[in-house]
Amino acid sequence: MTRTVVESKTKTAILGFDEPFCVIGERINPTGRKKLAAELEAGDFSTVEKDALAQVAAGATVLDINAGVVYNSNPNPNETEPPLMTKIVELVQGLVDVPLCIDSSVPGALEAGLEAAAGRPLLNSVTGEEERLEMVLPLVKKYNVPVVAISNDDTGISEDPDVRFEVAKKIVERAADFGIPAHDIVVDPLVMPIGAMATAGQQVFALVRRLREELGVNTTCGASNISFGLPNRHGINNAFLPMAMGAGMTSAIMNPVALPVGPKKLAEKKAEVEAKGIVLPADMDDETFCQMFGLGSTKPRAGKEMEAIRAANLLTNNDPHGGAWIKFNKAPDEAGAAGAAGGRRGGGRRRRA
Amino acid sequence: MTRTVVESKTKTAILGFDEPFCVIGERINPTGRKKLAAELEAGDFSTVEKDALAQVAAGATVLDINAGVVYNSNPNPNETEPPLMTKIVELVQGLVDVPLCIDSSVPGALEAGLEAAAGRPLLNSVTGEEERLEMVLPLVKKYNVPVVAISNDDTGISEDPDVRFEVAKKIVERAADFGIPAHDIVVDPLVMPIGAMATAGQQVFALVRRLREELGVNTTCGASNISFGLPNRHGINNAFLPMAMGAGMTSAIMNPVALPVGPKKLAEKKAEVEAKGIVLPADMDDETFCQMFGLGSTKPRAGKEMEAIRAANLLTNNDPHGGAWIKFNKAPDEAGAAGAAGGRRGGGRRRRA
Repeated sequence: MTRTVVESKTKTAILGFDEPFCVIGERINPTGRKKLAAELEAGDFSTVEKDALAQVAAGATVLDINAGVVYNSNPNPNETEPPLMTKIVELVQGLVDVPLCIDSSVPGALEAGLEAAAGRPLLNSVTGEEERLEMVLPLVKKYNVPVVAISNDDTGISEDPDVRFEVAKKIVERAADFGIPAHDIVVDPLVMPIGAMATAGQQVFALVRRLREELGVNTTCGASNISFGLPNRHGINNAFLPMAMGAGMTSAIMNPVALPVGPKKLAEKKAEVEAKGIVLPADMDDETFCQMFGLGSTKPRAGKEMEAIRAANLLTNNDPHGGAWIKFNKAPDEAGAAGAAGGRRGGGRRRRA
Repeated sequence: MTRTVVESKTKTAILGFDEPFCVIGERINPTGRKKLAAELEAGDFSTVEKDALAQVAAGATVLDINAGVVYNSNPNPNETEPPLMTKIVELVQGLVDVPLCIDSSVPGALEAGLEAAAGRPLLNSVTGEEERLEMVLPLVKKYNVPVVAISNDDTGISEDPDVRFEVAKKIVERAADFGIPAHDIVVDPLVMPIGAMATAGQQVFALVRRLREELGVNTTCGASNISFGLPNRHGINNAFLPMAMGAGMTSAIMNPVALPVGPKKLAEKKAEVEAKGIVLPADMDDETFCQMFGLGSTKPRAGKEMEAIRAANLLTNNDPHGGAWIKFNKAPDEAGAAGAAGGRRGGGRRRRA
């Protein structure tokens, strides 16, 4: 049985076919988050701290740490990223005791993260590119850690799933040459946006099944890629994750947190309320307002994707006796997110009594 | 390619591996609905009319018609069910032009439904029980209609999926003896409650795959059975349906409608609003109240399961170019139900820019 073991100082997360889905929180990543990048350059780590706590509270069992920021003051990531990686890893593991995923394209930042991380982090990532294989696999061997293997190579990302399978197979074989076992390779078969490629879902499901059956490896993906460019992305992600899990996917790098209601949304709703002639008491706080008007919460909480994943854990027999499902649907912090759809409709009936 | 064709007077619904999932609305069924049973005995068909319209509006492409009511005035369903079936079939097909599924355990009611239905209805159901095979298959042949085949037999419902597969295979073979082709058999592999049987999900997914690959048949199920007895049933159903579709399930008998907010729920919320010191304008109608306070709607609308199914249609490449998904997420009637989860959170980011 394939088990990929990832550890923090005292906690263990296991990726496996008979384990609950491993949610790797993706939020600590300044790529595409200009505000976070500017904060980090200014030495402000408050968002990192909030993201670490919120993701673990929402159900992430591993946190991805990416320090890929380009400073205005120094555009060379080979100089800036390694010390920033060390700083963020130390900060996060001082706050939350969950295994980390050290995520960088910069060799020095990977090694800095591996040095700083307690326990047995996951390394993110190797690809089928020759230079990357020669750079990352020795680190994987030296630090005895599992690694995410992305199925692209020097020819780029193939649209042919058979080619992506062959790239994954090559990485597993090259890793074996270094003495790295297949159970320490977590393959990312690459999720394409379904809006751009109609077969993107079918490709992933078929690939995950093959990777599991033929190579015996665990798998992961950047789950939200599937819905890129389409409306109601969460609606697509909520179906994609259970389908991928049904095909055998064992983890995803994703955002487990429903973003809190911000000042703009609050102001819009208050204006709408006022326009309808509704009068609020002067001392109503924003959180009560959100709760009364069905607006979510000013605090971060578990997103709907977490409900979909927990239901799929149950349906793949990785939640014995439904204990985690029942607890999730009773926990006061998450009842709002989890219970909304279920609570306001009548329960289904058994069709054949 | 397996295609099961079901027809109304002018509309066609097709069950197939390369077709959008076929949603068979289950609401027109007095079993377990005491109020509806009493209405029908009193000759009041208003609920049937509402259920027909609401289910089609929510996205059902076939409507199940079950007249299985036990009258207080006459406890013999062999006498009461056939004329009631005729009446309901005529009423429903006068209201909505969608194919019907004639659902009864009473032979006379099946034949009455087949006589009354325009086009090519689906018959529900045959089982592997000898008496039932000998009664139903001649009707299927005589009326040239497709039939739901439930995989239990004279020994009952087996907990062993291999036995249920063999029952399905036996029905397909017996049907062939009558000259009924496999593409007119829609197998229901029987969905057990996951709360009672931890492998219930895995059993269905494996069975659907085998039924598709080895017998080449379409499949259906009473989808909500999976969540029987557990909290937040919709959360489980929303994950189950995409997973079943990923395994190859091509239809389900289910409720596509989110129940409207009723007087009790309205009164509770209004009391809560008042307790918080919020003052409503005297002339606010209930529908506006629901919309402002995030309470759903006083009108029936598509349930979250329909969002999950539409997303899974997209992910199985049965929604070319995402046209149906985009339309669904823009339609004003359904925007509330479909957009709630997606609208209030930020869109996901592409992980690797």
